[in-house]
This record gives sequence, C-alpha cells and structure tokens, in this order.
Amino acid sequence: MAVYTDIDDATLSALLTEYDLGPPLAFKGIAEGVENSNFLLETPRGRYILTVFEKRAKKEDLPFFMGMMGHLASKGFPAPLPVPARDGNPLRTVHGKPAVICTFLQGMSPRRPDINQCRALGQALGRFHVSLSDFRLRRPNDLSLASWPVMFAGREAEADALSPGLSALVQGDLDFLKANWPKTLPGGAIHADLFPDNTFFLDGKLSGVIDFYFACSDFLAYDIAVCLNAWCFERRGEYNLTKGRALISSYETVRRLEPRERTALPVLARGAAMRFFLTRLVDLVATPKDALVKPHNPLDYAERLGFHRQAKSPEDYGA
Amino acid sequence: MAVYTDIDDATLSALLTEYDLGPPLAFKGIAEGVENSNFLLETPRGRYILTVFEKRAKKEDLPFFMGMMGHLASKGFPAPLPVPARDGNPLRTVHGKPAVICTFLQGMSPRRPDINQCRALGQALGRFHVSLSDFRLRRPNDLSLASWPVMFAGREAEADALSPGLSALVQGDLDFLKANWPKTLPGGAIHADLFPDNTFFLDGKLSGVIDFYFACSDFLAYDIAVCLNAWCFERRGEYNLTKGRALISSYETVRRLEPRERTALPVLARGAAMRFFLTRLVDLVATPKDALVKPHNPLDYAERLGFHRQAKSPEDYGA
Repeated sequence: MAVYTDIDDATLSALLTEYDLGPPLAFKGIAEGVENSNFLLETPRGRYILTVFEKRAKKEDLPFFMGMMGHLASKGFPAPLPVPARDGNPLRTVHGKPAVICTFLQGMSPRRPDINQCRALGQALGRFHVSLSDFRLRRPNDLSLASWPVMFAGREAEADALSPGLSALVQGDLDFLKANWPKTLPGGAIHADLFPDNTFFLDGKLSGVIDFYFACSDFLAYDIAVCLNAWCFERRGEYNLTKGRALISSYETVRRLEPRERTALPVLARGAAMRFFLTRLVDLVATPKDALVKPHNPLDYAERLGFHRQAKSPEDYGA
Repeated sequence: MAVYTDIDDATLSALLTEYDLGPPLAFKGIAEGVENSNFLLETPRGRYILTVFEKRAKKEDLPFFMGMMGHLASKGFPAPLPVPARDGNPLRTVHGKPAVICTFLQGMSPRRPDINQCRALGQALGRFHVSLSDFRLRRPNDLSLASWPVMFAGREAEADALSPGLSALVQGDLDFLKANWPKTLPGGAIHADLFPDNTFFLDGKLSGVIDFYFACSDFLAYDIAVCLNAWCFERRGEYNLTKGRALISSYETVRRLEPRERTALPVLARGAAMRFFLTRLVDLVATPKDALVKPHNPLDYAERLGFHRQAKSPEDYGA
C-alpha cells in the first residue's frame, strides 16, 4: 500500500493540460506497488494509472523502464503503455517528482497461483524475453551478486534473531554463490520482480504484467529463477515440483533453454532467493513496528534458501 | 489512506458468488475514507466500491447507514446505492467483518472549494435534508455536546502543547456550549461529516456525496454548521463570508431556515468546530509519529474556534 504523494484536483487538472486525454472524471489513490505512488485516473478517453516516482527510483533509469514498456506493448505483450504527452515524452514532473501516465490493464492478481497460472506465467515470461530481444537499452542489475555481501554486512545478529544460526547459513550461501555464479549465459532485458502480485489474470489467462521498476539487463535464466521462487513454493519452503515443471516447460514452448542455462538453474534459484531474503531483511529493520505497511517476512526466503541448499540438479526444479 | 483488510482473489470471488454482478474484472485497494477499508471493483455489470467496516464501525449502526444511502439514491440524490446480494440484503461478511458493495460515483473532490462549489454544496445539503424528511430510522449523534467534555478530559496538557493557553480557551468554549446549546430545533437525518473530500464534482456540478458513516439524527442546522466550518474557512482561521453567504443562501433555495435556526447558527458553528478539534486531538495522540496515515492538524479547528468565539450573530456567518 503506497500513496506517498498527495495530488489535489488543481494539480491533476494542470498535469492533464499537457495531454490530449480530456478532463479528469475520477481519480483515486490506489494500494498498488510499494516503491511509488499510484493513482487510478479516468478521463473521457479511458482509464489510466498515474505513477509518481518516489525517492528510491533513480531518474536516469526511467527512460529504460519507459522504453521497455513501450517496446513490449508495441509487440502485443500485455504491458501498460506509457502515454506520451503532447510533446511526445511520457515523462512529466508532479510536485518536483517524475511521473508517468500508463494505460490501465484489467485482471486480478492471484494470491496463491495454481498450476494453470504457473503455466501461463512461464509462457508469458518466454514471450517477455523474446519480445525484448531487439530492445537496445541497458541497465545493470544493482541487486545481483556483488550487492549481496554488502546488504548482509552488519545484519548477522538480525538474521540470528529471526532464526538461530541463520547468519552462518546465509554466510555459507554467499560464499557458495560467489564461487559458483555463472560467468556467461544468454542475457537481455529481464523483469527481475515478476511476482504474482505483479501479474493480472482474466478468465484463466494472463492479462497483464506490471511494475517494471526493478527491470534490468541480466541472464535471462535468472528471471526464471526469480519466478520459480515466487510462484512455485508452498508454505514453509516446500517446493512444488509440478508447478516448477509447468512453468519451465511452458517457458520453453516460446524460448528453448540452452544446456548451460539449465545447468545453472540451481545456483540462479539460490541467488534469487538470496536477493529477496536480503531486501526483505533490510526492509524489516527499516520499517517502524507500527507503520501501516507491513514488510514481507524474510523468513519465507530463508526457508526457500534451505530448499536450494539441498537441491542438486536442474531436475530438482523440474527442468 | 486506508486499506486495513487484505482481500485476495479467492475471497473476492467467493463474495461475488452471493451477488448477480458477474466475475471480477479488476480490483484495487483505494485510499478513500479513513475509518474503513475501500476497494474499487469492476465486473461486467459496472464499477463498484467494496467497503469493509473496521473496528470503529458499530455493527448495529449499519442498517441506518444502508437505509439512508438507499433512501437518498431512490430520491435521485447522488449517493452510492448499496447493492443487494441475491438474498436482498446489501450487508455481507468478509473475514468476519461487515462489508457492503455500493455503486461507483464519478467526479473529483475539491481540495480548496471555490465559491461555485460552496453554492452547489449548500443546495445539495438542502436536497439531502429534504430527501430524508420521510426517512424513518434514527441514530443518536454520539459526537455531540455530551461527548465533548469527556473527550477533552485529561488532554489539557496536549492542547497547551499545541498552543500555549489553548486548554483554558477550550474549557471556556465547553462551558459556553453547555450553557447555550439549543434545546429544540428542526431535526432529522444529517450527514454530520460533509467535508469537501466527501463530495465529488464534475463539470462544476456536484456529482456525488459519500462516506455516510458519521450520519445520525440531529438538528438540521448543525449540518450547515459543520459545512460552514469545512467549506468556508481560508488558512489561519479566516472565515470567507462570501462563501458562507453562498452556501447558506443556496441551502435556503431548497429549505428555508426558521428564525430560531438562524439565531442558533453561531453556537452550532462553535460546537461543530469543537467536535472536529476534539476528534483530531484524540487522533493526533493516538497516531504513532511514524505511521503513514498523517492525522489532521487539530490547530486548524482551534483557529476556527477562535473565529467563533468572536462571532456575535448569524450575519457574521452570512445568514
């Protein structure tokens, strides 16, 4: 839930004079996304989402995100399309912060994705990667291997407070990841945060993918590893192999994995779990106890790390 | 901003089986209302607002609110209509809490109402009272005269921390109100919280009134007094007499004030300012400093009390 920036009717009307969308008919702050402020906007032309980028968003990254969304939409992928203002640029400024108006996508986010949704997601991720194969912009993944020891430094006691002995296990994972992280794999533009709440489904079909603000350039298979973590675990770190198989095999109906990508899946999955464990650990400590935004529990990802530590082969993931 | 209850896709689908609205096409938590959780819901039948009543709402009051909204909508007043489920009752239960689905109203809430909006509001308030003249349900106003000394008890130091000497002034106001509060005036169903953010405007016309959850039975003129406080002050407790005149005179195009109501306006306005000063003072102390919901500043209403203390006659309000 996040509406950090307050936009009144006069500010909105002034913003809309820069567009050809007509006057506002309705406008409501919505609880979508954690990093930015989002508003549902209705005009005579249709419905839109206004996003105001808050402090965590780097201004120099925004053309990458806008370009990616526009590229995807132009290929028929169900991503929101940044609406250009009358000067052709979709990026505006509201209360001194960057802002964009995107098209609205229908659909519901699944809380507990079923096997059909995992299958649909795998195929959509394949289409996502293939659609972006000719996307030219680059943005490094600043939440990958090099950042993890930095994020964990000084947080050993917090980890052990969550679960006794956890810090030693995490340190072992960090050493393993550093020694075994792939040097080269097929790369390109990835979503990097394709959780169920960043997808919409309608009539059992994937109708939308949103929240591109962690997207970056990295190994394509790392994106699969993120999705295996986000879509294929049950409670208490139990991996649902059937869902994993469905996700990977439907991905491969669109883009075949190379043998080296398949081989790398276990270490990539362990790294993806580490990334979400660490950002959640950081957020847990940074969020006041009585704040209304409830931070995600890092333990969910500590439990997934436990599974990855035991996994021996791509077959353990359904590949 | 408020989404206290988390509703996932499975819970929503289960709820919608009790209605004839079709399956959900979109669903988003929205930042509307402070007391309850609100969601924008879209189905093939149209758009709706789902409200889940949180702990401050008393279950036994809900039929009064539902009845009032239905009564208003049936008279063509732009209030949300509670949608009956298949069993005829609009009240449902979600996660053990009462919930209702109402029709969606277009429009934008004014942050700083202009004179035309004050005029439109006055007329709408008149229509509101007249439309409800044959509404049979009753609900006492539990935030009126008797509650104010109780709310203020023990908060003298907090008031003085806001502004040195404030507690003595407030105590004087409470004594004055107790001695001068009207015994009888024309009464009926009132909104009791008709602030600009509970109204929508479209093309300069009032298109909706929402948030009936402080509505109760009280003096009709008290509702005008609430609106004079909420719509006709500029910064620093400066009363805009032109706006006050516009609001009252347009109200009277629909329902003529009796002489005794006009005479009572100054004391009613002082009481209305006291009510909002006190609930804001209580909320200020109850809200943790780092919570995302920013409490309203009680000083705005302490300043309005300052104006009311000086006011001598209905003419000072534009009546």
